[in-house]
Amino acid sequence: MATKPLILVTNDDGIFSPGIRMLVEVMQEIGEVVVVAPDSPQSGMGHAITIGNTIRLEKSKLFPEIEAYECSGTPADCVKIAKHFVLKNRVPHLVVSGINHGSNSSISVLYSGTMSAAIEAALEGLPAIGFSLCDYDHNADFQYIRSWVKQITETALTKGIPTGITLNVNFPSRKYAPLKGIKFCRQAIARWEERFEERYDPYGRRYFWMAGDFDNKDVGEDTDEWALSNGYISIVPCTYDLTAHTSIGWLNRQWSYPS
Amino acid sequence: MATKPLILVTNDDGIFSPGIRMLVEVMQEIGEVVVVAPDSPQSGMGHAITIGNTIRLEKSKLFPEIEAYECSGTPADCVKIAKHFVLKNRVPHLVVSGINHGSNSSISVLYSGTMSAAIEAALEGLPAIGFSLCDYDHNADFQYIRSWVKQITETALTKGIPTGITLNVNFPSRKYAPLKGIKFCRQAIARWEERFEERYDPYGRRYFWMAGDFDNKDVGEDTDEWALSNGYISIVPCTYDLTAHTSIGWLNRQWSYPS
Repeated sequence: MATKPLILVTNDDGIFSPGIRMLVEVMQEIGEVVVVAPDSPQSGMGHAITIGNTIRLEKSKLFPEIEAYECSGTPADCVKIAKHFVLKNRVPHLVVSGINHGSNSSISVLYSGTMSAAIEAALEGLPAIGFSLCDYDHNADFQYIRSWVKQITETALTKGIPTGITLNVNFPSRKYAPLKGIKFCRQAIARWEERFEERYDPYGRRYFWMAGDFDNKDVGEDTDEWALSNGYISIVPCTYDLTAHTSIGWLNRQWSYPS
Repeated sequence: MATKPLILVTNDDGIFSPGIRMLVEVMQEIGEVVVVAPDSPQSGMGHAITIGNTIRLEKSKLFPEIEAYECSGTPADCVKIAKHFVLKNRVPHLVVSGINHGSNSSISVLYSGTMSAAIEAALEGLPAIGFSLCDYDHNADFQYIRSWVKQITETALTKGIPTGITLNVNFPSRKYAPLKGIKFCRQAIARWEERFEERYDPYGRRYFWMAGDFDNKDVGEDTDEWALSNGYISIVPCTYDLTAHTSIGWLNRQWSYPS
């Protein structure tokens, strides 16, 4: 494109996190960057929005060279306030979210604030990508995926993303480097097996910690989980249309009602 | 079925809300009921879960005649702790969530704590229904939909729900009574047009209220919005597989990478 593309950057780990810093750096090599990101970590926030409460938005000093804001709201709030208040009539060519510190593959997409921000962008009619690194180490290295993040973003800008679709991009951890390439995948149908650990606070009141293990029995080789555990970057195109279209006919046949 | 079905009840408006009270009453006419619901309102929580923080769970005195708990977590947390801690080896025949005080049709399904609780149940392998009443009036009347809630629940128990699918049931407001019947629908592809109202607090610091108008340009007569505005109950079968399967081929064709 003739002029530099406008790219909106957000995340769910918060504006202080290393993942968004690298994402901003890469996006600055590609286009004009505006950042609106949460002022505190919002992992696991899903598609939560702030209803019946106030939202703060302040200029951020963390990225002094660009237009950057920190927001008290959820990741989805950040995209909404970016579009309707910060950018107003400026329409971004792309919205990128991340780079999340941890996996958002398989069903984790539903719990992910990173991906919900990207899906919110799609709901607002904007092409969007969520990036996640499958590495929970506190000092996770984001640098080895840097060239891939740039390449995927540039390809999205030139080749496009299908209308209404959000790309869920997950990178395998560094132990798989050098990465083998990209696989377009479906979301693995796996689940989390939770356990609730019962404890008592100093006042004798019971509380719980939720912990869980990811349990993937989906053996398909077309899934994001297969790609990631075989050294590939997984890209799942995601829709915000939750309708199970093929179930409508079944229900019309099986459920009979007096009209 | 020979023995009474076990039904787990939750919601997002909180255990004190009138919608869950009526839902519990109706479910008690059908089966054995266990309640695990948020101890405070959780509207707009989407599929948020509690990560890195503690969860409280206390026996509730609101439903003294049954097994009922109030939980400090999100609606999705409530389903997780119900399955893995409260019920353990008791497997519910059905999970019902609601009755939400307000619409969860169209894309509101993504923001809805009510529906996220129901979808969480599906992720856990359980059949589930989310019920919502499209009436925001503080004194909304839930009674006129009572017989429909019972009929839909009984049909779900006898005819079944497709595996992995969650039913998103919305009732039109009372002005459409008597209701014409049920339509199995797809989710309307609409959007919210947000506005952010800028204000200043007593300390001179800026804050925002998010407000929005629902904007439906999807004129299809097979949508939940069409059904609701024509006096029908809408039922959208929902999946937790966000994969836009038909986009995988497009991406494989259009995006070419060096391997």
